[in-house]
Amino acid sequence: MLELESHLCGRWQRGAGRGEPLVNPSTEEPLGTAASEGLDLAAALAWARDRGGPALRSLTFAERGELLRGLSRALHAHRDELIGLAIQNGGNTRGDAKFDIDGASGTLAAYADLGASLGAARVLADGEALQLSRSPRLAGRHLLTPRRGVAVHVNAFNFPAWGLAEKAAVALLAGVPVLSKPATSTALVAWRIARIFADEKLLPEGALSFLAGGPAGLLDALGPQDALAFTGGSATAAKIRAHPAFVERGARLNVEADSLNVAILGPDVEEGSEVLDLFLADVARDVTQKAGQKCTAIRRAYVPAGKVEVVVERLRERLQAVRVGDPADESTGMGPLATARQAGDVREGLAALAQAAKLVTGGGRREGKGYFVAPTLLVSERPAPGDAVHTREVFGPAATVVPYDGTAAQAAERAAWGGGGLVGSVYSDDRAFLAEAVLELAPHHGRLTLGSAKVAAQALPPGMVLPLLVHGGPGRAGGGEELGGLRGLAFYQQRTALQGDRALLDAIVGKAR
Amino acid sequence: MLELESHLCGRWQRGAGRGEPLVNPSTEEPLGTAASEGLDLAAALAWARDRGGPALRSLTFAERGELLRGLSRALHAHRDELIGLAIQNGGNTRGDAKFDIDGASGTLAAYADLGASLGAARVLADGEALQLSRSPRLAGRHLLTPRRGVAVHVNAFNFPAWGLAEKAAVALLAGVPVLSKPATSTALVAWRIARIFADEKLLPEGALSFLAGGPAGLLDALGPQDALAFTGGSATAAKIRAHPAFVERGARLNVEADSLNVAILGPDVEEGSEVLDLFLADVARDVTQKAGQKCTAIRRAYVPAGKVEVVVERLRERLQAVRVGDPADESTGMGPLATARQAGDVREGLAALAQAAKLVTGGGRREGKGYFVAPTLLVSERPAPGDAVHTREVFGPAATVVPYDGTAAQAAERAAWGGGGLVGSVYSDDRAFLAEAVLELAPHHGRLTLGSAKVAAQALPPGMVLPLLVHGGPGRAGGGEELGGLRGLAFYQQRTALQGDRALLDAIVGKAR
Repeated sequence: MLELESHLCGRWQRGAGRGEPLVNPSTEEPLGTAASEGLDLAAALAWARDRGGPALRSLTFAERGELLRGLSRALHAHRDELIGLAIQNGGNTRGDAKFDIDGASGTLAAYADLGASLGAARVLADGEALQLSRSPRLAGRHLLTPRRGVAVHVNAFNFPAWGLAEKAAVALLAGVPVLSKPATSTALVAWRIARIFADEKLLPEGALSFLAGGPAGLLDALGPQDALAFTGGSATAAKIRAHPAFVERGARLNVEADSLNVAILGPDVEEGSEVLDLFLADVARDVTQKAGQKCTAIRRAYVPAGKVEVVVERLRERLQAVRVGDPADESTGMGPLATARQAGDVREGLAALAQAAKLVTGGGRREGKGYFVAPTLLVSERPAPGDAVHTREVFGPAATVVPYDGTAAQAAERAAWGGGGLVGSVYSDDRAFLAEAVLELAPHHGRLTLGSAKVAAQALPPGMVLPLLVHGGPGRAGGGEELGGLRGLAFYQQRTALQGDRALLDAIVGKAR
Repeated sequence: MLELESHLCGRWQRGAGRGEPLVNPSTEEPLGTAASEGLDLAAALAWARDRGGPALRSLTFAERGELLRGLSRALHAHRDELIGLAIQNGGNTRGDAKFDIDGASGTLAAYADLGASLGAARVLADGEALQLSRSPRLAGRHLLTPRRGVAVHVNAFNFPAWGLAEKAAVALLAGVPVLSKPATSTALVAWRIARIFADEKLLPEGALSFLAGGPAGLLDALGPQDALAFTGGSATAAKIRAHPAFVERGARLNVEADSLNVAILGPDVEEGSEVLDLFLADVARDVTQKAGQKCTAIRRAYVPAGKVEVVVERLRERLQAVRVGDPADESTGMGPLATARQAGDVREGLAALAQAAKLVTGGGRREGKGYFVAPTLLVSERPAPGDAVHTREVFGPAATVVPYDGTAAQAAERAAWGGGGLVGSVYSDDRAFLAEAVLELAPHHGRLTLGSAKVAAQALPPGMVLPLLVHGGPGRAGGGEELGGLRGLAFYQQRTALQGDRALLDAIVGKAR
């Protein structure tokens, strides 16, 4: 059976112990193990800092961008192989796997373009020179330099390719070496990617390390210039935040956690309209794509009270038409959940939702092998702020329709019951409604998509995270921020104000960009 | 005796209990008390959120700027009175007091100007519209909106006026109500300022609350949209970071903590030069101004080994010429430390420094009443990374000269032994040395000032925090960022990516700025 190795200190190493299992979630057959016991993670981080850091900092942004271009191309060249592994280890349908893998190569390509646009600079200027006193000679400028630590990336099980690539793209372009740790249960794709990158020698030595298996001891080895970008559950995030690496030692932390994302149907949207179809398609897709295992998936669909009945009926039809089964089969619309534990959590979560909302379809358990759960729709009849619909993220194929009075104010108020989200979507052609909804929803969200007739044909789904737009959200969603083009680099950089002779600062910083 | 009250829920209230004392540090005479026991802080925060938040958000940036202009003018109108209180309760010389109070009114005025420059907008656009797909119609934009919570400001004892004003200026301009809590021991100035603002009705109801006395229960009342900006010691900061408000509930935290700031003398600087004089003046000022109680004060002066002797001699002369005593006396160059506890901490710290470095002057205790400590200079003869010179912030009138080999690389390496700083200063006319020093020091610093001959006559001292430049630093310095013009507003805003019809986004966001 396959034993996944880690790439640390420039060589592939296997940890001791039995390790954690990787399983095919459709068949429950074991695929391999990943063990990290005894690996010297402090040495691995030191290696990354001492070798990878200087190597990356010596490159221009354009050169770092070229490295990312090479990674993007390598993923594309191995696309079919990676899709196969995602079907096998992730329970992904072919479409699910493409969403992950093409998202990875696309994000790397977008950051390659950003690198090219920054040209021969190695550090970035932030803003222009400022006059600080009556003398025009004395100026202030802000400079962004790469921090001298390691970017440690701890990814979730749902996007093994995209999670690795989007985080690495940003850190590497910033000039900071990466240690990437995928969730063990679905690590096959990430491990294969790390092998491809290493075998094809696409990066300088020390620029990308890879940890397969548990992360014990990893946080203890973080120093003040290191950074951890974590994607995962909010309970784990809370534990991480309290670790001395962050509380005492000054390492940086970015968290992307739970989110009860909302989709809001405007009161103006009529049956038969393109906008209603867009809303229905987005909700149904988010229930079934990756079996609902997307941090950006719509969990709560707000519908004006008078339209709940028709919307529920239309969604029920769509969800019941989805064929659940073996993701290797081209006719399958939805595969299993990724692990037995996820399936258990989702079933528990559905039971909690059913206390607060009425089950419309789904909710059951399929007989036989595999971690299958049917696409599930509920409708909340008496929405209340503390109920499970607004407080429990069920990370699987489920959404709840919630009625509201058709005002942007009430939709936003009820959306905020979720405690902060990654993404919300609003469907309307009423500009006043949209404008009010945006201003009321924005403080509680990292991203908002506006579905109107003018863009219905070319709209990108709310669940798709785009490299040029920020990804993250306040409150329950973790309070973090990734991507957003160059905005994402800030997490790996130190911003420093400079003051002095204007010509001198321009000579130092002017070269920067 | 004066009993300081808090301004909460729109009225002045006194807490129960004996409270904490305020003392004149020159005479040890009690001046008053501040008690906060039993005050309903959760209600106070809810009041600020519910009254102050909507009132501020309804104003344009220009209107918020006008409010700040009014605050700045009010401080200026009461300048002499406030200077008197700072001498009395802070042990400030008249010059020290002006530095604090004029810094406060100047920062408010700078943010008033920024508000005026933003005009009729209420929210800010971040960047331009981006094309997201092949269709030019589908666009992405980023929007910055005020968070819906309270900006809680916990300030240090050393800058009661500036601390209150600089934090309030940024939050109020962002559209977020403030609850300001000064350090109790020197709260007289901050309390008087809060009274002036309230008596003159310069702000909308709920926009500025004031807490006199201990903060017990304050963090427990913070919700996910609230933010705490803390200035103080790193031990307290570590406790705050681990609080459930931040670890579990999503409140934001900005910390500005300890810093062993460096001044680096370049190898090219000759005796008798303006640049050497600038270096000596900056080091000597930072030892004595506010009796060394500045988070930005130079603690470590790096000097090429061959020049240590002459630099030490010149600094010794300067420091021994400073007259220490009653700050009310115009001929006094340096007053006492702010409290008995500070004086005790400083004396302990000086003892620790003396284990690692040789005492040149000062270090003793003055007889009689008052928390006086003499200006103190040490010289490190065998610098080592773990010694107290690089690890212990002695928050009083003391600095240590540390030799280095005259290379920017070694100066930066030894500067980094401090674990991250608020500000560093480099004195040289050698552009290559300055450029290398900047790039090596920047990842470890929030601000760097470059003292060269061209600006020696008009240089602003490194210890002066400027409203348009960021203030904060990585690692030991807390990892936070304040001010920096509009950059400072980000802490009180949520950044939200919007995607949709370009014309629609421009209509919503275009108005934003």
